[in-house]
Amino acid sequence: MENFEVINPTRIIFGKNQLDRLPQLLSEVGVKNVLLVYGGGSVKRIGLFSKVMEKLSAFNVVEFGGVEANPEYATLIKAVEIARENNIDFILALGGGSVIDGVKFISGAINYQGDAWDVLERKEGCVFTSAIPFGTILTLPATGSEANSGAVISRSELKLKMTMGGPLFFPQFSFCDPTVVATLPKRQIANGMVDAFMHTLEQYLTYPMDNLLQEREAEGILSTLIEIANVVEHPEDYKLASNLMHCATHALNGNLRCGVICDWTTHMIGHELTALFGIDHAQSLAVIAPRLWKRKFIEKQEKLAQYGRRVWKIEGDNETVGRLAITKTEEFFQSLGVKTRLSDYTSDHQGCEKKISAIFKERGWTAMGERKSINLEDIEQIVLSSI
Amino acid sequence: MENFEVINPTRIIFGKNQLDRLPQLLSEVGVKNVLLVYGGGSVKRIGLFSKVMEKLSAFNVVEFGGVEANPEYATLIKAVEIARENNIDFILALGGGSVIDGVKFISGAINYQGDAWDVLERKEGCVFTSAIPFGTILTLPATGSEANSGAVISRSELKLKMTMGGPLFFPQFSFCDPTVVATLPKRQIANGMVDAFMHTLEQYLTYPMDNLLQEREAEGILSTLIEIANVVEHPEDYKLASNLMHCATHALNGNLRCGVICDWTTHMIGHELTALFGIDHAQSLAVIAPRLWKRKFIEKQEKLAQYGRRVWKIEGDNETVGRLAITKTEEFFQSLGVKTRLSDYTSDHQGCEKKISAIFKERGWTAMGERKSINLEDIEQIVLSSI
Repeated sequence: MENFEVINPTRIIFGKNQLDRLPQLLSEVGVKNVLLVYGGGSVKRIGLFSKVMEKLSAFNVVEFGGVEANPEYATLIKAVEIARENNIDFILALGGGSVIDGVKFISGAINYQGDAWDVLERKEGCVFTSAIPFGTILTLPATGSEANSGAVISRSELKLKMTMGGPLFFPQFSFCDPTVVATLPKRQIANGMVDAFMHTLEQYLTYPMDNLLQEREAEGILSTLIEIANVVEHPEDYKLASNLMHCATHALNGNLRCGVICDWTTHMIGHELTALFGIDHAQSLAVIAPRLWKRKFIEKQEKLAQYGRRVWKIEGDNETVGRLAITKTEEFFQSLGVKTRLSDYTSDHQGCEKKISAIFKERGWTAMGERKSINLEDIEQIVLSSI
Repeated sequence: MENFEVINPTRIIFGKNQLDRLPQLLSEVGVKNVLLVYGGGSVKRIGLFSKVMEKLSAFNVVEFGGVEANPEYATLIKAVEIARENNIDFILALGGGSVIDGVKFISGAINYQGDAWDVLERKEGCVFTSAIPFGTILTLPATGSEANSGAVISRSELKLKMTMGGPLFFPQFSFCDPTVVATLPKRQIANGMVDAFMHTLEQYLTYPMDNLLQEREAEGILSTLIEIANVVEHPEDYKLASNLMHCATHALNGNLRCGVICDWTTHMIGHELTALFGIDHAQSLAVIAPRLWKRKFIEKQEKLAQYGRRVWKIEGDNETVGRLAITKTEEFFQSLGVKTRLSDYTSDHQGCEKKISAIFKERGWTAMGERKSINLEDIEQIVLSSI
């Protein structure tokens, strides 16, 4: 097992009707001025917005709605200005991963002197050195952002998706109420399933490195997600919904990666498909992952076989089980209603493999994956074979 | 799934040669006067004590050695006095669960006005309201105390073992170096295995309550511990030792109990066996657990069967698999060298079942276990059948 250091100070408040805790959590750290950040109108439509506003009656609240799926830098910068004007001392994210990611950026940018985009571009000397504290009220189980310190921010006019994060960006608390699942469209639930599944596999489908417990924890999430897949059809079933939400949090709360060298190349390619074509994040992962595993089959064979045996209960030799595990996974995504071919989402894909490899080259991402063996030729072939 | 709230702010620093991080961790929170608490001479014998002292050269260090296995109130109160005299602003626990538990008590008692024993006895109005911050350097994987906020304190002249804990008592950091396992006697490693195994089972062997992921996480720990059982014979094997240490932490870091109603009756009875006869904590659990599961077989049958199927790979109907799972577990403890009968440890057991039920009655513990169905008659029969 590799050495590791892990900390996760986020308070998870999980279950039904827990929002009564909200005023107390804010009062005990002396909050006065809250920036309430949300996305589209769904939180108002389902009545959650008014419930939250009611709980915030003792605080000065400034609303900021309109954060997009794949939160946009230009939008978030407006929130930063509003936060500064209103002396905001706490930010509340009311939404899914995009709103929460956006709030992480806002919380760092508020006190940043200079252009915060430089931080995302990792320009030398450009880092967030403080962050306004924030909490979350999760409305969509998927990204795990409610329980980690990472974020992905988009700038669509440049067709860029950039990552950020660090110890400053853990939520103080996250309310995780599984009853929100029943308010979601099927597509979002299915995306959430794929997202949690792929977060787990990015940390798992590598090569054996003596992390026996971490592997079993990952297999536990994968097996549970398969067991509760019916949540897409029955989102009102609390057993299914609560396990989905718990799995999505655990898939990316920092636990699975303890002492583990991860892959994450599917995410890196997927981010570009989202930036280029506006494909949902989870859809982009479902398109790329099976192709990446086939391209790197020999290197990932042992873990693919372990995954096939333990999660899908397939028997046979490593090659047979490994290949069938890929097929099973792709069929699983399809069974959720998530299509797994780039051409299912766009016909405008000509030459995109070159665009993506050019972006990777510019960023110096020429040796990716757990073995640093995924090169630009691999990237192009993976994208091409995903069409 | 039941509602839950969970937080665990302890920084885990896992692996070899990580102690260089220690001075920085103390400096960044402005520590000046450190109380270094340890147990017997083993930390000196293995050279760890001098390594730690070297890292502490920039701080005022007051040593306090001699904390017992099952840390004694009388000993700890001496440490409290020394801490007060020396304006200690940080405590470093160098040891296993007993030293760490002791430090949790010391950290709360330092600023407590009055007799700190009253807090352990839960006298009305008697609570620790602040704690001196502390960190740990773990020398024995077993109790999980390095990653939780609970402690057990003994007062042998009264034959009492009392629990304490709460949000104030999370370590700031814990150094978990698996190479310490190679310095331990076989008995302590075997005890650690049983301890981690039983912590997991206390939170798992109850009844189905829709916690699908928590169950799989528990099964992952149990399966891993079985897989690495050879660590007792090969403690120098880093793969085995690191997985044991990771399992022991994860067995009691608050994760498995999320939304779960636990049992813990084996622990409560076991504590009394330790208090009465000085039996090692893990040994007391190995003695009681199989008897408790048999006594409450009908109530625990479904989970026992799931445990048997998923962890021990036994096939058959619930009753057959459940009963065989108990046998397998007892044999597993024995295979580690841990005996599973009270008479293996003492011949002085006459009437102890009455003593224990009398203590439970006095404390009002007359309806225990996950269903509150374990009564004083059950307690006596469980103890009697364990002889």
